[in-house]
Amino acid sequence: MGQKPITFFRQVLALCSYPDLLEDSKFPEDAKSRARRILQACGGGSLGAYSTSQGIEIIRQDVARYIERRDGGIPCDPDNIYLSIGASDAIVTMLKLLVSGEGMSRTGVMISIPQYPLYSAALAELGAVQISYYLEEDNCWSLDINELRRALQEAKKHCSPRALCIINPGNPTGQVQSRQCIEDVIRFAATENLFLMSDEVYQDNVYADGCKFHSFKKVLFEMGPEYSEKVELASFHSTSKCYMGECGFRGGYMEVVNLDPEVKVQLTKLVSVRLCPPVPGQALLDVVVNPPQPDEPSYDTFIKERTETLATLAEKANMTQEILNQVPGIKCNPVQGAMYSFPRIHLPPKAILEAKVESACTQFNLISVLFMDISKGEKGQSPDMFYCMKLLEETGICLVPGSGFGQRDGTYHFRMTILPSKEKLKIVLAKIKEFHQHFTDQYS
Amino acid sequence: MGQKPITFFRQVLALCSYPDLLEDSKFPEDAKSRARRILQACGGGSLGAYSTSQGIEIIRQDVARYIERRDGGIPCDPDNIYLSIGASDAIVTMLKLLVSGEGMSRTGVMISIPQYPLYSAALAELGAVQISYYLEEDNCWSLDINELRRALQEAKKHCSPRALCIINPGNPTGQVQSRQCIEDVIRFAATENLFLMSDEVYQDNVYADGCKFHSFKKVLFEMGPEYSEKVELASFHSTSKCYMGECGFRGGYMEVVNLDPEVKVQLTKLVSVRLCPPVPGQALLDVVVNPPQPDEPSYDTFIKERTETLATLAEKANMTQEILNQVPGIKCNPVQGAMYSFPRIHLPPKAILEAKVESACTQFNLISVLFMDISKGEKGQSPDMFYCMKLLEETGICLVPGSGFGQRDGTYHFRMTILPSKEKLKIVLAKIKEFHQHFTDQYS
Ligand SMILES: Cc1ncc(COP(=O)(O)O)c(C=O)c1O
Ligand SMILES: Cc1ncc(COP(=O)(O)O)c(C=O)c1O
Repeated sequence: MGQKPITFFRQVLALCSYPDLLEDSKFPEDAKSRARRILQACGGGSLGAYSTSQGIEIIRQDVARYIERRDGGIPCDPDNIYLSIGASDAIVTMLKLLVSGEGMSRTGVMISIPQYPLYSAALAELGAVQISYYLEEDNCWSLDINELRRALQEAKKHCSPRALCIINPGNPTGQVQSRQCIEDVIRFAATENLFLMSDEVYQDNVYADGCKFHSFKKVLFEMGPEYSEKVELASFHSTSKCYMGECGFRGGYMEVVNLDPEVKVQLTKLVSVRLCPPVPGQALLDVVVNPPQPDEPSYDTFIKERTETLATLAEKANMTQEILNQVPGIKCNPVQGAMYSFPRIHLPPKAILEAKVESACTQFNLISVLFMDISKGEKGQSPDMFYCMKLLEETGICLVPGSGFGQRDGTYHFRMTILPSKEKLKIVLAKIKEFHQHFTDQYS
Repeated sequence: MGQKPITFFRQVLALCSYPDLLEDSKFPEDAKSRARRILQACGGGSLGAYSTSQGIEIIRQDVARYIERRDGGIPCDPDNIYLSIGASDAIVTMLKLLVSGEGMSRTGVMISIPQYPLYSAALAELGAVQISYYLEEDNCWSLDINELRRALQEAKKHCSPRALCIINPGNPTGQVQSRQCIEDVIRFAATENLFLMSDEVYQDNVYADGCKFHSFKKVLFEMGPEYSEKVELASFHSTSKCYMGECGFRGGYMEVVNLDPEVKVQLTKLVSVRLCPPVPGQALLDVVVNPPQPDEPSYDTFIKERTETLATLAEKANMTQEILNQVPGIKCNPVQGAMYSFPRIHLPPKAILEAKVESACTQFNLISVLFMDISKGEKGQSPDMFYCMKLLEETGICLVPGSGFGQRDGTYHFRMTILPSKEKLKIVLAKIKEFHQHFTDQYS
């Protein structure tokens, strides 16, 4: 999408990949010292060796120190860190570990609607019961504890609820949870004995005034031993998002808290089946959690690049919401964080009808087809899919229909990333505006 | 283990990681042109973008051409290629796709004993039925069709056999299958309607005179349409072995043949849950299947490095077998291929007894504990574990006991890699020799 990689990260990766470059005077000393340190921790001093399955030890130590700094000094044990193949891998592994039982005793896992479709897909694959709780669209997609309660009570009738997944900042909703909300969620999890899974891959992507990222780990420990010694938590981070945007490297980690020691042994076994996470991704994660320091030569450039990327994202978040809200029939919550807007679209009844009779669902784009809620036995397309297909045909713009993420029945949305360059995004938004007006006219 | 990476591969990886280096005159033109081509195929021209879930298209095309060259021109469709996170990922994914049913209808999967423990672990995780067929130790660990038949007939009484896994060249056995044997296996799979999974990650690691690697794909197609249009096959390759030894990058691919189109759609969905394989691993795979050509500047160095690595491995394979066979009480088959010897060790009855009363199984090394056959309800250690623990304590040498791979009851083995440098390997072998004699004396 044109977001530039952080120079320092790529220098370290090049040095690690081809250590002859350590003799090259063109590379700054701090990049070289990071590369040397990583290579020393690798088997045979090479990215090409398998690492331990949990991840290279010094990198887990660096992650632990990063978490401690982030959380104002709350301790983190490197032994609770598992490096992963992006966050996806760790999330699926943790779900695998949690899911068991048959019939009424089958594990239920609470996920938000709308959600990032990895969750519903993984639960389907594992044969777990998906317990949907709806985020409050009218309240900036915030999480309401009463809705959690409702969803849980209902689920208890047919499965054994065991885990609660949170995405904060949210994909696709872009909401950022308040500290109060996180405390409420933790209390709820404690009372109901639920394992908390907190997906925090967008932890640096917070744009809206008054919003701040709070990690579940930090809030949990600040609530005192009554909670911090009891509630089981796994939180996830990734090199794919934030200001890094290094999705292709598949770097990430999970921190587990209060995991039963025997379960932890099983977790370690489970991850060892796939041998180890990609070592270049581990190396990248290491520099993400251990970036240039003020006294180092690469510091200024690093800060400049990071600040620019995050500032541009904030601008685009704002611009997206503003322009979309100018369109009659589109209503967009503030994009408080993450990288997406998820506006609600009003579709004329004639369009809804036409969608339903439209012959079979054409292959659209894999991720949407994969996760589409097309299992409802209706013929034809979901109306927002119909809308997105028309948009694609008429403008070449590809949005993902809300039905790929889940939405309240009778409401329609699309998800749009804020990642394209400002100039491109402006054009895209203008085209969507025009398309929506045209579409509404056509079907009214 | 000291095996040097191929310079060209690492140059391309460095160039891809930090494209500023494309301006650097120190890098050869062929490395630069490979890097440019790979980057052009990446989203945004960067390794940092997610690729399509099946893997970058031009890399799948390069893999297909590599397979065609390897197999004497038998066509390969890039659409049948799935890039993966090492071979492990593809193997587990394929098993996941094949396994279903409950009770008598539960999927059974045939695997060799001894086997690479990924298979038994994945089958256990999936709740599939493991159908063990024993390789013939007295015949250089070759595969005997009668034993396949025996194992299958027995399994049909309690599960629904669906797939047959082959490792060729073998881990841990080092055997290389003859063309005749592969034909027999294919005929057997055709008759019994079994899905063939052929693990060919050691395809370049063939050392013994008279042995040659034959891919299942090639033999299948040379057997004519009766087989080539019918037998379902998935074969696996990886950047981790051969002369590359780049395990940490987690590169690999799978080729599927005769897969039902609807099943293929499911496979594509399944892999899309984890978004994409690591892009640096994909890039590495690309240069592995598309290495320097005779008219290119890096050709000579590449050939020299590859030849040296493979020649040294061949020497060490030979040396290992020779030295081990000098030890009374150790009997080692020729290491025809792959990277391991799996000698049989004679253990005195007193040692076997002592092992069984030895208190609980100490944590040894993860992979062996994970895959050890310690579920037989016996107290104490398996005798070969006891042996390997003693060896570790006395010499610092870490071998994996045969029980980690499976072996006929009452026989004992260890697996030893041939990867250490010649000098080191010689010392290790001498120490094992000494230890074995000492151990035998002590317990006689
Ligand atoms: C909320 C959320 N979690 C997890 C992921 C997975 O990211 P990765 O596996 O690349 O770390 C994503 C990717 O979009 C995401 O949006
Ligand atoms: C027979 C065999 N198959 C598959 C693998 C997995 O290798 P990777 O996942 O690194 O490609 C190994 C690794 O040792 C192996 O020996």
